[in-house]
Amino acid sequence: MTAITVKQEANVKSQQGENFSAVHAGPMAQLDSFQLEHPRMKRTITGKLFVRDLLKLSGMQFSMNKLPAGRGAPFLHQHKANEEAYIFVKGKGQMQVDGEIIDVEEGSIVRIATPGKRCIRNNSSDDLYFICVQAKEGSLGDDTFGDGIALEDPVNWPA
Amino acid sequence: MTAITVKQEANVKSQQGENFSAVHAGPMAQLDSFQLEHPRMKRTITGKLFVRDLLKLSGMQFSMNKLPAGRGAPFLHQHKANEEAYIFVKGKGQMQVDGEIIDVEEGSIVRIATPGKRCIRNNSSDDLYFICVQAKEGSLGDDTFGDGIALEDPVNWPA
Repeated sequence: MTAITVKQEANVKSQQGENFSAVHAGPMAQLDSFQLEHPRMKRTITGKLFVRDLLKLSGMQFSMNKLPAGRGAPFLHQHKANEEAYIFVKGKGQMQVDGEIIDVEEGSIVRIATPGKRCIRNNSSDDLYFICVQAKEGSLGDDTFGDGIALEDPVNWPA
Repeated sequence: MTAITVKQEANVKSQQGENFSAVHAGPMAQLDSFQLEHPRMKRTITGKLFVRDLLKLSGMQFSMNKLPAGRGAPFLHQHKANEEAYIFVKGKGQMQVDGEIIDVEEGSIVRIATPGKRCIRNNSSDDLYFICVQAKEGSLGDDTFGDGIALEDPVNWPA
């Protein structure tokens, strides 16, 4: 079986180092300059930028999203292996999971387990902005203070 | 060895279902209402909300962050197992990885591999807002269209 991952052509400034990659996608309000073709549905999705390929991510995939007023996903979906988190940074809208409605706005965060049947819509009169992250369900061990190593080296910044 | 994970007491509205958890943390500008104690450094961190415990996440941890003008992390850090991604949603600032400077602003996204020695500062005159995600490096298989299952069920929304 051939893996289907998203390789999105995107005109973004980037910067690379041995241990990092950075992209500069521009203001959230201009996210609709990014488009991709849904490989199965044969339709164009506007306002969604997937970053895994651009950033060489190996533990997560995420998308930067602008969902215009009155728009929504046309279908429910589940996942096979990946947990999803939706992080809302501006605007208002709704999600549904297994038929339960969640009103979302700036600062709302929604975790969805693989079997959850989910959908999103913007039922407000302003654009809705969110980040959707996926990572393998059950894969995370220790985090933050347990996984991080604080260094003694001095921190130097340019003047 | 006892795992050190972050369990942050936070007064947020939440909503739970069999396959989801949602929290409503409020406007990004009010993120400084959240504080936590750094368990090793014995200091209080303000403007950072970790969500793994609140949301019962199993594949990722992330924090919602407000970094005021002129502030920055006082030390460099690395990670043992987790890849990090910093997603900037408002403001301007700088990161450094292995001494290399990355100017960041709204729409900048930075991936850092475990060994990267990293730090962040807000050298601007406005607050900087970002989300920092961590997931186990190398853990992600298929994603998005390969991992998602589009359903035929009709999508019903309340009127």
